[in-house]
Amino acid sequence: MESRKNPRKGKRPSENPLPPIIETAVEYHITDGEDFMDEIFRKDLEISWGFVRARISREEYVEAYWTVVNELLSHGEHKFFVALDPYNRYLGHVWVCITEDTVDFIPVAYIYDIETVEEARGWGIGSELLKKAEEWAKERGALKVLLRVDIDNPAVGWYKRRGYTERAVIMEKPLPG
Amino acid sequence: MESRKNPRKGKRPSENPLPPIIETAVEYHITDGEDFMDEIFRKDLEISWGFVRARISREEYVEAYWTVVNELLSHGEHKFFVALDPYNRYLGHVWVCITEDTVDFIPVAYIYDIETVEEARGWGIGSELLKKAEEWAKERGALKVLLRVDIDNPAVGWYKRRGYTERAVIMEKPLPG
Repeated sequence: MESRKNPRKGKRPSENPLPPIIETAVEYHITDGEDFMDEIFRKDLEISWGFVRARISREEYVEAYWTVVNELLSHGEHKFFVALDPYNRYLGHVWVCITEDTVDFIPVAYIYDIETVEEARGWGIGSELLKKAEEWAKERGALKVLLRVDIDNPAVGWYKRRGYTERAVIMEKPLPG
Repeated sequence: MESRKNPRKGKRPSENPLPPIIETAVEYHITDGEDFMDEIFRKDLEISWGFVRARISREEYVEAYWTVVNELLSHGEHKFFVALDPYNRYLGHVWVCITEDTVDFIPVAYIYDIETVEEARGWGIGSELLKKAEEWAKERGALKVLLRVDIDNPAVGWYKRRGYTERAVIMEKPLPG
């Protein structure tokens, strides 16, 4: 009769079930992201996979992803901010890096990444993360913020509404085997 | 009467005056650029100065230029080709670098710089330099070539005619002091 000792095993709800993120996100706050690197890169790994147009396997992608991330992290001054709900659950992040621009030759900040989880959208979290990154960059001496967006990404309009203008174009040409 | 000893001093033409580049450029050839780094970077320093929109002094620019160049040279696999006239005078160059793309996560080649001196234009030197860079990149395993052009630079059309398409846009926002 062992089984009767805990008849609801596996079904019992936890004592303090947390409300879903879609309900808590409105009460978000933004803080330093350095303690949330796991969530940040797990999220970015998935999002970035959706933008890959090259024909590579998931395994090749994951390997290349970490190569690129480590390459980016190896130079410049980096900062991460996260948005959290009142239970300190991850809602989104921004990754910004101070470097020298290769065109204007002034200290600039690159936004490498900015994300908000789907259930947390609509509360201005992305705008606040961007603002936080810009403020940090300005304190650090950056004279402008730069970022790269795919040409057909609706985010182009989102950035325009936040004061960004198109400066340059990245052109590409495949090298067929 | 000292002066009569060399009456044409300062006026005598050299024994083998070289014809001007505008006449010799048509007989250009392309070769490895590693022995011409002085000419390459002297030329690039001047050209790049013309693209700077930030308000910085010439001195600030020159210092930042070398910081950026050394930063770029510090990672990736680099290659330079030069175009020379029959007297081995510099006519133009291309600088290409193999790296990992931050969007497609595949090995790509970046064209960091491609130039032809004004007196040597019209003979297809730029096209040949670009082709040479692409061939080198392909041999080294790059799956595509990327480059950045200012949005209002007529070079956008020049690259389109050579098989390049617009992939992404670099957006910027000044951080007023």
